[in-house]
Amino acid sequence: MNINFYMPTKVIIGKECVKNNAVLMKEFGKKALIITGAGSAKKNGSLDDVIDVLNSNNIEFVIYDKVMSNPTVKCAYDGAEFAKNHRVDFIIAIGGGSPMDAAKAINLLACQELTEEELFEGKFHQDIMPMVFIPTTAGTGSEVTPYSILTYDKIESKKSISSPLLFPKLALLDAKYMINLPMTTTINTTIDALSHAVEGMLSIRATTLTNALAIESIEKITECFEALSEKKLDFEQREKLLYASMVAGMVISHTGTVAVHSMGYGLTYFKDIDHGRANGLLLVNFLKLVNKHNKGMIDRLLKAMNFETLEDFDKLLNTLLGEKETISKEEFEKYAAIAIQTNNIKNCKVATTYEDLLDIYLRSFE
Amino acid sequence: MNINFYMPTKVIIGKECVKNNAVLMKEFGKKALIITGAGSAKKNGSLDDVIDVLNSNNIEFVIYDKVMSNPTVKCAYDGAEFAKNHRVDFIIAIGGGSPMDAAKAINLLACQELTEEELFEGKFHQDIMPMVFIPTTAGTGSEVTPYSILTYDKIESKKSISSPLLFPKLALLDAKYMINLPMTTTINTTIDALSHAVEGMLSIRATTLTNALAIESIEKITECFEALSEKKLDFEQREKLLYASMVAGMVISHTGTVAVHSMGYGLTYFKDIDHGRANGLLLVNFLKLVNKHNKGMIDRLLKAMNFETLEDFDKLLNTLLGEKETISKEEFEKYAAIAIQTNNIKNCKVATTYEDLLDIYLRSFE
Repeated sequence: MNINFYMPTKVIIGKECVKNNAVLMKEFGKKALIITGAGSAKKNGSLDDVIDVLNSNNIEFVIYDKVMSNPTVKCAYDGAEFAKNHRVDFIIAIGGGSPMDAAKAINLLACQELTEEELFEGKFHQDIMPMVFIPTTAGTGSEVTPYSILTYDKIESKKSISSPLLFPKLALLDAKYMINLPMTTTINTTIDALSHAVEGMLSIRATTLTNALAIESIEKITECFEALSEKKLDFEQREKLLYASMVAGMVISHTGTVAVHSMGYGLTYFKDIDHGRANGLLLVNFLKLVNKHNKGMIDRLLKAMNFETLEDFDKLLNTLLGEKETISKEEFEKYAAIAIQTNNIKNCKVATTYEDLLDIYLRSFE
Repeated sequence: MNINFYMPTKVIIGKECVKNNAVLMKEFGKKALIITGAGSAKKNGSLDDVIDVLNSNNIEFVIYDKVMSNPTVKCAYDGAEFAKNHRVDFIIAIGGGSPMDAAKAINLLACQELTEEELFEGKFHQDIMPMVFIPTTAGTGSEVTPYSILTYDKIESKKSISSPLLFPKLALLDAKYMINLPMTTTINTTIDALSHAVEGMLSIRATTLTNALAIESIEKITECFEALSEKKLDFEQREKLLYASMVAGMVISHTGTVAVHSMGYGLTYFKDIDHGRANGLLLVNFLKLVNKHNKGMIDRLLKAMNFETLEDFDKLLNTLLGEKETISKEEFEKYAAIAIQTNNIKNCKVATTYEDLLDIYLRSFE
C-alpha cells in the first residue's frame, strides 16, 4: 500500500456560505483581486455576494473579468500584470473551471518571474497569494485541485500546471449560483465531473481512498441522472452535483486524469467542443477498451451507476449529449497523434496505443 | 446540505516512508523535539529510524520520553517546559494515541501561555510549531485529528482540546513498526478505530462525505476480522488497519465521537480499562439502542461489516475482548452521571438519557 493524501483546501458547502464565512476572508489580507469571466458571475449573483462581503468587511478589491473559456497562457500573463499593478493581497476566483484555472496561473505569475516553459515545469519557490474559490458550475473541481489547465498554442492542446501551491485556501460552494445555469452547461460540466471520478479510478495512482471518494462522487451524480435526462434540476440536485464535482476534484488531485481527458483536449482545441462534452463523447468507447483488460473495474463503475452494461451508460450519454459533431478521419489521426504523447496516457492502468486512441475517436463519432 | 471539510495534514502511507520523506522534515526547522512513551518506540524501530533521518539531515534533536498511557494535563505542562528549555523548532511524535495527544498539548503550551481552563477552552492565538506524527498503533487516528485528549482529574475523566492548530503537518504511516505489536494492544486499538468510524456515522455532524469515509474504514477493518479473531496478522493486514484507523481519524475530525467514547472514559479513568477495550465493551449495547430509533443506519453498518445482526457483531467482540471486568451498579451510576454531562452525548443523532447510559453499562457487563 502506497498512499499519499494531501487536501489542504478548507471546503464549505451550504446556502449562503459566502456571506456566512466572510470572516475567513479577512485573514487573507486587505485587498482582493476578484477573477471571473465576462458574464455569468454577474448574472448568477455570486459577484454581488462577494462584493457585499468585501465591502462590509472593509476589504478593498479590484476585478479582473477578462478570463475567456479555455483560458490561454497569454490570459494568465495579462491577469498577473493586472494583479501586480494593483498590489493585491489575495485572490477570489468566481465561476467555472476557466476563471478558477486562470486564477491559479495568474497568482503564480504575479508572485514569481516565470517564462512559459518554467510555468509548465512546475518548479516554483513558495511565494503565492491565498486563494478563495467560488465555483458556479459543477464540473471542474478546480476548487480542490493543485492544477491549472491552460490552452497552450505551442502544443496545440491544453496543458496542466501542477503544484501544491495551487490549492486554494478556501472553497465556498453554494448551489444557489447554479439555479439558472443553462442545461447544456449543466450537462457538460456534470459529465466532466463524472469523467474525473471514472478516470481517477483508472489511474495508476488510484488508491483505495481515492476509489472510495470516486464511488461516492459517482453515486451522487447517478442520483441526478434522471433529472439531467429530463433537463429539470431542483436546488438539492444542483447541490448534489456541486458536491460530487468537488469530491471528484479531490480524486483527480491525487490520481490525475487518463486518456479521456487527453483525447478530449484535441476536440476542444481544434473544434471548440466544450470540455465536458468532449469527455462525454469519448468516455464509453474508452471504457469498452478498459473492459477488455479490467472487467472488475468496469463492473464496479457500472454498479455505482446502477447500470447493467456499458450500453446502458452509452444510451444515457447519447440522450444527454444529443447529435454528434462531424469530424474527418484525418483530423482524428492528428488528435490521436497529439494525445498519445501526453502524460495522461502513461497515467492509465490500461496501456493504450495510437491505434487504440484513433479507434476510440472513430467509434465515438460513428 | 451543510458540509465542512478540512484535512490539512499531509498523509503518507508506505514501507520506509519515514526514511523516504526525510526531506519534508527539513522544512520544519533545525531542532526537533521527539515526543514518545517510555518503551515501544525504542523496541519497534521507529525511534531509531527517526534518529537516523535527523542525523543524516543535520537536524538537531532532543527526546522527551516521559509520556504515560492516558497522559495527564500535568504531563503536557512538563513536556512544554522541556520544549521551551530546549528551544526546539518542531515536534515529532512517535507512538500510539498517548504520545500523539500529549505532543499536541505540549506544543500548544510551549508556544502559548495558557492556564488549565484556557487550554480546554480552545481559544488560542496562532502560534504553534509544525508537527510530524508517526503512529505505531492503529487506533486513535490522532495523526489526522485536531484533538488532544488528556486525563483531567478535575472532572474525573478525559477531556478533549480541539483546535485546527492541532492538525499535524505531516503523518508518516509505516506498518513495519506494528509487526510485533502485542495482540491485546492490536485488538484494543482496532476496536477504537472501528468505534470512531461507527460513532462518526451516528454524529449529528455526520455528512455524506464523512459517511463514505467511515464505510471505507469499516470495510477495511472488516477485512481483518478473521485475522484478529485468530490473533495472527500479516504485514498487509497491519497496514490495512493502520490505514483504516487514519481514515476513521479523518471521520471524527469532522464529526467528533458520541456516547460510546463518553462512557468509555469512565471505565478508563476509574478502572484503568484500556481506551479501545472500553469502547468495545459498550459498543454493541449502544448500537442496540440506536437500532430502536434508526434501523437504517444500523443496517448500513452491518452491511459494511458483513454481519446479519448486531448479535453477530457482539459475538465477534466477545471473542476479541474475552472475559469482562466486574463492576458494581453503584460504580456504573457514577460513570453514567459523569458521561451524561459530556458534549458527546449531545453530538449523537439518537438522544440518550442517564437511564439509557446506565442500562448500556449494565447490559454490557452482564
